Amino acid sequence: MQLVTNSNILIVGLGLMGGSYARALHRVGFHVNAIAHKQEDIDYAIQEGFIDKGAAFPDPELIGSAELIIFALYPHVFKEWIAANQQHFRPGTLLTDVTGVKRCIVYDIQDMLRDDVEYISAHPMAGREVLGVRNSDDRIFRAANYIVVPTERNTPEAIETCKSLGRVMGFARITELTPEKHDEMIAFVSQLTHCIAVALMTCNDADHIGTYTGDSFRDLTRIANINEDMWTELFLDNIDALIHQMDLFSAEFGRLRWMLASRDVDGMKEMMRKSTARRIALDQGK
Amino acid sequence: MQLVTNSNILIVGLGLMGGSYARALHRVGFHVNAIAHKQEDIDYAIQEGFIDKGAAFPDPELIGSAELIIFALYPHVFKEWIAANQQHFRPGTLLTDVTGVKRCIVYDIQDMLRDDVEYISAHPMAGREVLGVRNSDDRIFRAANYIVVPTERNTPEAIETCKSLGRVMGFARITELTPEKHDEMIAFVSQLTHCIAVALMTCNDADHIGTYTGDSFRDLTRIANINEDMWTELFLDNIDALIHQMDLFSAEFGRLRWMLASRDVDGMKEMMRKSTARRIALDQGK
Repeated sequence: MQLVTNSNILIVGLGLMGGSYARALHRVGFHVNAIAHKQEDIDYAIQEGFIDKGAAFPDPELIGSAELIIFALYPHVFKEWIAANQQHFRPGTLLTDVTGVKRCIVYDIQDMLRDDVEYISAHPMAGREVLGVRNSDDRIFRAANYIVVPTERNTPEAIETCKSLGRVMGFARITELTPEKHDEMIAFVSQLTHCIAVALMTCNDADHIGTYTGDSFRDLTRIANINEDMWTELFLDNIDALIHQMDLFSAEFGRLRWMLASRDVDGMKEMMRKSTARRIALDQGK
Repeated sequence: MQLVTNSNILIVGLGLMGGSYARALHRVGFHVNAIAHKQEDIDYAIQEGFIDKGAAFPDPELIGSAELIIFALYPHVFKEWIAANQQHFRPGTLLTDVTGVKRCIVYDIQDMLRDDVEYISAHPMAGREVLGVRNSDDRIFRAANYIVVPTERNTPEAIETCKSLGRVMGFARITELTPEKHDEMIAFVSQLTHCIAVALMTCNDADHIGTYTGDSFRDLTRIANINEDMWTELFLDNIDALIHQMDLFSAEFGRLRWMLASRDVDGMKEMMRKSTARRIALDQGK
């Protein structure tokens, strides 16, 4: 399918991310419906005006009328939902998602899926440290990256539609990675950083930190306010890649500790110069 | 001395922090002079209008006319400067500083100092990832903490004047710590965070990170753009406290890795709940 004005889009899962997608897509003129866990979330989204219709159950009519369905569910829930409800899809429907891990779901879902629908995976690299549709906000997409994660089974048309979806929602950069490369990258830039933030926040029981700290501690621990159900699942779904990145970090941190303990000034300065150069390159998009 | 309109203040060291102090103090009406390493920095500050006079050498007249002198120098330079120039102080002059480590300088300087002047130490918990007076900006103080670090030798009057200094520059919170407690706290909230950011930035040579990453990696590595001369000196000046905090963090990070590897879901969730509670308390100032 191609995204056109009045395309009928269904969002399954109306939390922070599903709600933010709904706001962005409604804003640009699509017909947006939603299926949520709780009726109160549907009521809220209708009242706020960013979905047209909704149901708190897998309504066959809503599912069957959608040209594009976006899944904003936990990985294991996503798989169960497809298995239970795919008979309601209209032939030709395009499916996509927002899931933060890919190898463990993309192949399984493409394997189990009916032949007359297509699933193209994507990962919006945006979020907030709060939960639920009431905190949804599509401004989080503005400076953010949107990664399309195709497999060999995906058609060029679906890949292009998925990229268009990222563009119309206002993402700053649209890129493409394989599921394997995605999970390796995400283990480093997202999952490892959450592990570090949590360990930093819990390694020392000092009180009244806010009274003494500078911005650096606040920056490093912003994501230490964490959804433990979601992140535990994401970590376990990517366990090999994450442990590899944790070990790379531990080795480098240990090297810095050793240089400090042995007063290796040149070594420390060299590491800091490398760090500075890489951080500047990051801001320059290199 | 007490801070009054037209108090004569001398800033020694006109980099990012000295310049930001000068801007803040000039703005509220004090008479601000400066001694810098380079004449061009003095010229810039005079031209921008936030100092009245300046010199690129330890001018006895500027030193002798100051009622309050603020040192914004690297720790070892600060000590050398006092030893070389304290004969020029006017009796009754109050000295303070911005140095990021305290045990290694406060006692030494109080020991070497003339009996008719007083040194009360302070640490403004603010900064930027850029250097030099041209990047100075006193808005960095607005939401920031200002820590006064007295010893038993300090008078109540000097402590009060130092707190007033933080208040007039616009700091959000003024607190008081001993040199020992300061260095322990700073090892945790500031030095450890810089070590983590540097190790995170250098542990993986992946390119084009900016194209794929979300905000979390940017947040955790903002301070990985680091002044290697200053931070190497600060780390070495607080080596025992910093290594202790690095070891606490490594142990906690290793505990998380172990829980992940052994798929201890309950343990991981418990650590994340503790992390979330502590991060919320931080924002609430607890």
